Formats: sequence, C-alpha cells, structure tokens
Amino acid sequence: MSFADTLTITAPADFHVHLRQGALSELVTGHVRLGGFTLAYVMPNLTPPIKNTEEALLYKAQLQAIDPVVEYLMTLYLSPELTPNEIRKAKRAGIVGVKSYPRGVTTNSDGGIESYEAYYPIFRAMEEEDMVLNLHGEIPSAPSDPTSNICVLNAEPSFLPHLIKLHAAFPKLRIVLEHATTRAAVECVKNLGDTVACTITAHHLALTVDDWAGQSWHFCKPVAKFPDDRQALREVVKEGHHRFFLGSDSAPHPPTKKATATPSQPCAAGVYTSPILLPLVAHLLESFGSLDKLEGFVSGNGRAFYQRPAKAAAQKTVLRRVGGKKVDAKWAKGDEEVVPFWAEKEIGWEIVPEA
Amino acid sequence: MSFADTLTITAPADFHVHLRQGALSELVTGHVRLGGFTLAYVMPNLTPPIKNTEEALLYKAQLQAIDPVVEYLMTLYLSPELTPNEIRKAKRAGIVGVKSYPRGVTTNSDGGIESYEAYYPIFRAMEEEDMVLNLHGEIPSAPSDPTSNICVLNAEPSFLPHLIKLHAAFPKLRIVLEHATTRAAVECVKNLGDTVACTITAHHLALTVDDWAGQSWHFCKPVAKFPDDRQALREVVKEGHHRFFLGSDSAPHPPTKKATATPSQPCAAGVYTSPILLPLVAHLLESFGSLDKLEGFVSGNGRAFYQRPAKAAAQKTVLRRVGGKKVDAKWAKGDEEVVPFWAEKEIGWEIVPEA
Repeated sequence: MSFADTLTITAPADFHVHLRQGALSELVTGHVRLGGFTLAYVMPNLTPPIKNTEEALLYKAQLQAIDPVVEYLMTLYLSPELTPNEIRKAKRAGIVGVKSYPRGVTTNSDGGIESYEAYYPIFRAMEEEDMVLNLHGEIPSAPSDPTSNICVLNAEPSFLPHLIKLHAAFPKLRIVLEHATTRAAVECVKNLGDTVACTITAHHLALTVDDWAGQSWHFCKPVAKFPDDRQALREVVKEGHHRFFLGSDSAPHPPTKKATATPSQPCAAGVYTSPILLPLVAHLLESFGSLDKLEGFVSGNGRAFYQRPAKAAAQKTVLRRVGGKKVDAKWAKGDEEVVPFWAEKEIGWEIVPEA
Repeated sequence: MSFADTLTITAPADFHVHLRQGALSELVTGHVRLGGFTLAYVMPNLTPPIKNTEEALLYKAQLQAIDPVVEYLMTLYLSPELTPNEIRKAKRAGIVGVKSYPRGVTTNSDGGIESYEAYYPIFRAMEEEDMVLNLHGEIPSAPSDPTSNICVLNAEPSFLPHLIKLHAAFPKLRIVLEHATTRAAVECVKNLGDTVACTITAHHLALTVDDWAGQSWHFCKPVAKFPDDRQALREVVKEGHHRFFLGSDSAPHPPTKKATATPSQPCAAGVYTSPILLPLVAHLLESFGSLDKLEGFVSGNGRAFYQRPAKAAAQKTVLRRVGGKKVDAKWAKGDEEVVPFWAEKEIGWEIVPEA
C-alpha cells in the first residue's frame, strides 16, 4: 500500500471537530468534506455551550443546512444543568456523547467541571444508555503552587488518575480521552479496558514544544509536548492499536486572534486542519512509515468504538500522490477568513475529485 | 527593611543586557539608567557579532556616546576566529568576558559554538588572564531525535554536564551560567566551586511556561519553565546566595516582531525589562519575601564576582513605594518603539529622581 499512487479510504470520520457558530460556521463546516471526511463528531463548546437536547438538535440542523452530506454526531457540554433524565432524552434524540472540559483550560471552557464525583449520577445514566463520555484530559494549571507544579506541560499526565478512577467506577461506560499528547496518556489508555479509547490529532503527530514556542499558529490546548511524547503518538498509530483513532480537534479562529498578541491578550488556542485533513494525515503517517494504518486510524478504529460502521454504500475518498502542491494560504467567505495548519507548505497527497 | 517606604541601593549593576545597534540602540541604551542601573554588562550578539577587541571598543564608544554615565563592561562572541593572543589583547583593552552561544539557540546565534573542546586554548588563555566566560547554557533542540528528546524544555538541564566538565577542566576560570531557568541549573551551580556563578533575569522570577504559551510578549530563550523551577530561582534569591545575581537579559525587539507571527515566521525571542528594571526586581523580590536581599542580588553579589566593587562615590539609586502606578505602554524615539515587560501593569516601587 505504501508504494501505491492512490489510496482509497472508506468513509473517513473525524471524531473531534469544532464547527463554530454563525458566519464562521458557514465558512468552516464545508471544510469537513473538503478535507475528505463524511462524519464529524461535533464539539459543544459554543458561546453559550450546548447543554441540552434541544440546543444540540438546533445546532445539528444549522450544520445540516450548511452541508447536508456530512453526518454530524452531536454532543452535550457536561455542566451542573445536566440531569439523568436529560441524558435519556438526549439518547433518544440520537445524541452520542457528553464532553467534559476542566474549568478554564481551553477555548470556551469557563463553565467546565472542577471535580467528577458530583457527576456520577450523570455517568451512571450515560453508562445505562451507552452514551460516550469525551474527556478533555487536563488539570487546570496552578502556577502559584510550586508543590503541585501543575502547568500546561504536565496537565495531561496529572489528569490520568481521574481517567483511571472514572473507568474503575464505570467500567461499561465508553470513555474517550481526547487529543492525547503524551507517552503517559498513550500508555495509560493502552492499559485500560476496551471501553476506553483515545483520539489523536493530526497536528500533534507533527509538532513538538519547539514548534509553538513563539509561534502562535501552532499554539493549542493541550500544547504539543516533548519529542518522545510525539514519538509515542506515532508509535501507537504505527502499531495500529484499535482503540486509537483520529479526532482532529480542528479549531478555527479569526487570523487576528491567532497571529497577534498584545501584552494583555494572548493568542487563541487552536490549530485548524479541517480543509486539508485527510491529505495531511496521509502525509504524516507516510513520514513515519504508517501509511498502511491510514484507513484504520481515520475510519475503522473510531467507527468500531463508536459503533458507527461504514454503510455498504459509504463514500470512498480517493487520495493520489502529488508533488509540489502547496496548502492554500487561507480560505475566506464574506468577512470570515481562516488560515490552515501547514499553510503554503507542501503535502504529498491530494483528494481526487469525485467524477 | 521590608517595611520601609524607601530603599537605597548602591550602584545597581545589570550583568547581562542587550543594547543593540543603530536607531534601536539610541532608544534603549538610555533605558539602563532609566531603570536605575549604572553598570551594563553588554552582550556581543550583534549583526555581525562582536568578535575582536577593535569591534568591542568601537561598540563601547557608540554606547558611551549615547549615555556616558553608565559603565559598560564589554564582551566578545566566542567563535573560531578568536585566538589566545586576541584574548590577551582584549584583556589589556579592558574587555571583561567572552560569551558562548550554542548554535542557533537564540537571537543572532547562528555563528555559535557546537562543541567546547576546540576552544580549550581560548579558555586556557582566559583563565590565565582572569577573564570571564559567559555561557548561554542550552543544547540545541533535536525534535527529530526522540531518543535524545532535547527540546526547549530540557535544553538547559541537558547543558549542565558541559558546565561541570568545563569547570573541572578550568577550575580557576570564572564562569557565569547565564539566565538560569531550572531547579537543576540552580542546584548544579550551587554545587560547583566559587569560580562559577549564575545570573537570573527579572522575568524568569515572574513567569512560568503557561505565561508564554500563546503569549509571544513573554517568549524568550531560555523559555520560562515549570512552577517548581521558578520556585527554585526565588529560593536561591531569598537565600541570598552570593554567586547568584541579576543579569536582566533585557532584549528589545520591534513590536511587530514580538506581537505578530505568520505561519512561516515565529515571533522574536526576548523580554524587555531595562526601563523598569530596578522597580520591577524590587516588586518581584517583595512578592516572595526577599526585599532584604535586593541590594545583594542587583549589586553586591555580581560586583563581587566580577571584581567590580562599588566606588566610594558610587551612585545610590533610591526607590520609594508607590500605589497605582502603571508601567508605560511603550517607549519611542523616531521610528523606533519598544514595549516593556509588565506594560500597563502596576509596580509597587518607583525610582526617586535625583535632586
């Protein structure tokens, strides 16, 4: 497969994506399909967050109005307003998961959780209903506490005991540790049971800490870590481990918020990969000798965990080798504009347009 | 002392500062005195670097033409062009030190060193002449080598074996490990002999990694590290250890290079503290209960190591408490502009103008 000039991938599925609201959503929602994907697992951290079934269905309808071809799997934002009854209602309405954000850790997470015990009745209902719990697995930083020493670099490893405890308390609850960035997280998930999976982004397969030091376009949460951490992500993809799969965490922001910091206003956290996602992932996997694992990573593994097998008539995305083709510098629609990861750099694969 | 409303500091000395060239130098050189300092230990990483005695003396004359009051201690840039004879010539001309930059690690370091053995004849001559070796103590990152795992986060601890080896080979050579950022570096220097000292910047007493994640104004090399690392810097200052002293590494860049990254061009590395330096250091030391160590940290310790005791008639800088005073948003001269660290934030001390 690695020497072929074309690759055919059945029903690529992005199991973690931010499709935003309003005009920005009008611009970026279509990029799911442009990037080769036919399924989007949609994050609920809007302003305000998606906290109940009605809001999720309304948001889904808005996304379908923009691009009806993509299958949108919807999620709720874990908050004190959620109830076991609402979980059962959400399940009946086809909502797939609940996303937990630690308070203040990333974009629009001010309403996030501080401890999990209070949510055990919710998790019990989710386990009964077979819904998925999606975890942004980071502990909030505590720079003024040198004893705990928690900062963006160890926020993920420090979260793992919570994952282990949750899995022990709810062994049948399907849990996804989102956007893993460390060897510790990879090892932890591997050692847990079959109800625990892990998404990996494209950009975390490419970046290390040096890449975002002074380079705001590569700044996201969780931040990219040490070279050995990136290596662990690559190794588990190369291994083809069935509980590890793509969730792009593609997170568009207006260029002004990404490019420019003032002394009082940092840049926005997020890397935007949607419009180039499948070619980029193919390019990266090939760079570390794992092109034969592409279909499992971008489709099969995640679909199996989410119990969303590709349909017999599912779309197949065809990639072909290309030389000297550069990623667009930006995409725009009206006043909205987004700059992709890898802008104006070469990718060795492109999507073959449908006949 | 910590409850007084004024503090009198004898002859503050900044043992690591970047005074730049041309119009930017015209703007920033006067900020040494504005920040309360009467001695500047001047870095040689200009474009091109200061590589010999003549260039250093010419640069010194340029700085004296801008502000003749400050005492400028000059340094040479360690490079293959340097010879033992040039070291002896530099010593006779009053040049104090030689600065070593690992290749490519920070601003204008492309001509820096790759290994030290080739420079042993230089170091021998420096030891004989009692000149000071100033080390930017970082190993170049190797993101493509997950086994070595070297990145901006461990570049300094990974350098320490080189410091230990250099000190063992040249026990009488005075060596300064510049701008320490880690507990490992502090412990290492403490465990070495009296000929090894260490500078600490103001901003590394304030920042941790979270502060520069997405915030380019706080991005510098070495990057600020974990909360526990910052705590180690604070502890050694609080201890009043005589071989640890201020070197601001104040490094101005045009705001456009600090504020804005493009996908292909990261922000410049450097934090600019000169115009507010003594009030800022007083503010920070007070925040961790070390105001009684201020004079040693900003004057006595460094002057003792550099054998530059304050003269009997030395200038005394007087600080007084102030409430609600904010740091200027910027300083400008002609087309040049610089934005300071802590811009528009409050500092609890100000310099009393001379009568």
